[in-house]
Amino acid sequence: VDTIAFTRGVPAPECLPVEALADCARAAVERDGATILNYGPVAGYGPLREWVAERHGVTPDQVLVTNGSLQGLSLLAAVLVDPGTRVLVEGPTYDRALHIVARHGGEPHAVSMDDDGLDPDALELPAAFLYTIPTFQNPSGRTLSLERRRRLAELAREGRLLVVEDDPYSLVRYEGEPLPSIYQLAEGEGVVYSFSFSKIVAPGLRVGYLVAPVELVSRLEALAVQTYLTPALLPQATVHEFVSRELLESNVARVVGLLRERRDAMLEALEADLPDGASWSRPQGGYFTWLDFSEGTDAAELLARGEEQGVTFVAGRDFFPPGRGGDGSARLAYSFVSPAEIRIGAARLAALLREPRSSPVPV
Amino acid sequence: VDTIAFTRGVPAPECLPVEALADCARAAVERDGATILNYGPVAGYGPLREWVAERHGVTPDQVLVTNGSLQGLSLLAAVLVDPGTRVLVEGPTYDRALHIVARHGGEPHAVSMDDDGLDPDALELPAAFLYTIPTFQNPSGRTLSLERRRRLAELAREGRLLVVEDDPYSLVRYEGEPLPSIYQLAEGEGVVYSFSFSKIVAPGLRVGYLVAPVELVSRLEALAVQTYLTPALLPQATVHEFVSRELLESNVARVVGLLRERRDAMLEALEADLPDGASWSRPQGGYFTWLDFSEGTDAAELLARGEEQGVTFVAGRDFFPPGRGGDGSARLAYSFVSPAEIRIGAARLAALLREPRSSPVPV
Repeated sequence: VDTIAFTRGVPAPECLPVEALADCARAAVERDGATILNYGPVAGYGPLREWVAERHGVTPDQVLVTNGSLQGLSLLAAVLVDPGTRVLVEGPTYDRALHIVARHGGEPHAVSMDDDGLDPDALELPAAFLYTIPTFQNPSGRTLSLERRRRLAELAREGRLLVVEDDPYSLVRYEGEPLPSIYQLAEGEGVVYSFSFSKIVAPGLRVGYLVAPVELVSRLEALAVQTYLTPALLPQATVHEFVSRELLESNVARVVGLLRERRDAMLEALEADLPDGASWSRPQGGYFTWLDFSEGTDAAELLARGEEQGVTFVAGRDFFPPGRGGDGSARLAYSFVSPAEIRIGAARLAALLREPRSSPVPV
Repeated sequence: VDTIAFTRGVPAPECLPVEALADCARAAVERDGATILNYGPVAGYGPLREWVAERHGVTPDQVLVTNGSLQGLSLLAAVLVDPGTRVLVEGPTYDRALHIVARHGGEPHAVSMDDDGLDPDALELPAAFLYTIPTFQNPSGRTLSLERRRRLAELAREGRLLVVEDDPYSLVRYEGEPLPSIYQLAEGEGVVYSFSFSKIVAPGLRVGYLVAPVELVSRLEALAVQTYLTPALLPQATVHEFVSRELLESNVARVVGLLRERRDAMLEALEADLPDGASWSRPQGGYFTWLDFSEGTDAAELLARGEEQGVTFVAGRDFFPPGRGGDGSARLAYSFVSPAEIRIGAARLAALLREPRSSPVPV
């Protein structure tokens, strides 16, 4: 059987505006080749930095454009995390953020969540910072409510908590009204905002950015120049050409249309197929739904059987600090697989849940 | 006065093959957009990795293509350097390598050099590794002799010394016969080889690579995936298109022609203008010459006066571990300034050296 992989949080190939980007890449080099092709500012391609600054109502020296947003978060962790420092994360959270915090010796503490996102009453302060993906979270698909955003913004403005707001998915919204970012609500005080073009233009370009106070951006620049000198300027100039041609809005609409179909297919299939006891999030946007199996189901054991039966997912425990949860849960990504594949995969998953467990293998 | 900056180790704009790269960028996206524009292998764009492997007679799993070669060195230092470890470097050496070693808590020890490069008898073993730029070194312009390369290769093959060979300049040769790399002489044993396309294609693309044993590449990949997921694929695919069209050799010849003129202008002007007592290296390639002022001259003081008189350079001490040398020396880069500017700058430098020192400023 061909395996249906609900593992990959990756855009479907149809989402990528190949022709437009081929054109933009060429045009960018022809227009500004001497700048793009030489060493340049470590904070990124000037015109894109200015575009970002205008978009967020900040000055360009508050913007650091990096080789993908993860590189920005990685630099940020190197600057903010000392060994032994507590770092608050959502439980569950993006697994790579957990690894980055751990690599710098930080101690990730998971903040409990419900359908309205992380619970502000569960924040254990003080902490170096809170890492949050408030909108269409990876891995849960959940969105932080407006009221809770306000509370985090208040803590940030009062200087009680530095919030690192990772926002790659918010433009990929299938329904409902956009919410203000924590960054907006706090008017930038006490919040570092991270954005990525991966989900609305193309991930292989590796273009993301941070918006942060000038002093912090300067520290990040100093580290970045000793790490990679200059980010790759061709992709940044290509993105700049893309937004200058006003292709972003229509591309987002196109991507949203393609992925909404997949989200719908996933939710409908889960509803139709899964046995009682299972529950899952109903994301209004983004790439993921979070599935809680019925009590007593072990996600790792289920995954092992799924690999034989042609359906895979990421076990929930990968999104928690070690031993802190997720044993009965899974992340299902619907962004890469087609609606037809989603239906097949969900049916296989349902069959697995109905099957008796495989008998223990004699050692 | 317009300042003549001998500071910038950057290719002149005329070196950048703008039209060809505009074309290659477009063609690469048109040919392989679905791969280039999505998340991909952390070790780099597959076809480029294969091209590199073939070039060096290794397997692709021995190759890591990074966002510029400095990023590769940065990952390497993170993996190889523990706090307190001794790391051998040339004295003088590339300043950013010193910073990277120090950032990871390593202790750089400078190995003395003469016109034949570093002195193998001066290596203080054991050490985590030796970082060397054997050909047209930054900052000295010197080249390690064949006999010394053989000795380093022998130490590497015997497992007594890990050599990190940084080789961005060797193809930019104005005269003389190419020398084998240490990597070649050691047949890859005990040597990590680093290459960059910055000096022969374009630095703004940020494409460089490491060739290393499979186990080490795996460790670097594991770190890279937690740092930036995937390198920027568009520039790598653009470089691949460039080499596939067999444009590399003719571009190198063109760049060498342009820069040889500048090297010649620099050496002739220093010969004609500088007072007795000064001496300098006579590089057969690359971007730099290393200037030793007459005894008692303080490079930092000279630089301060130079900034007023319209000529700048990088003070030699920046290329040594703190307090370990370079006080009477300077790095002069001739790659970015035109031959006419080089002559003006050298004359200004000569005038500075002839002038009495400025009297101390009362505090």
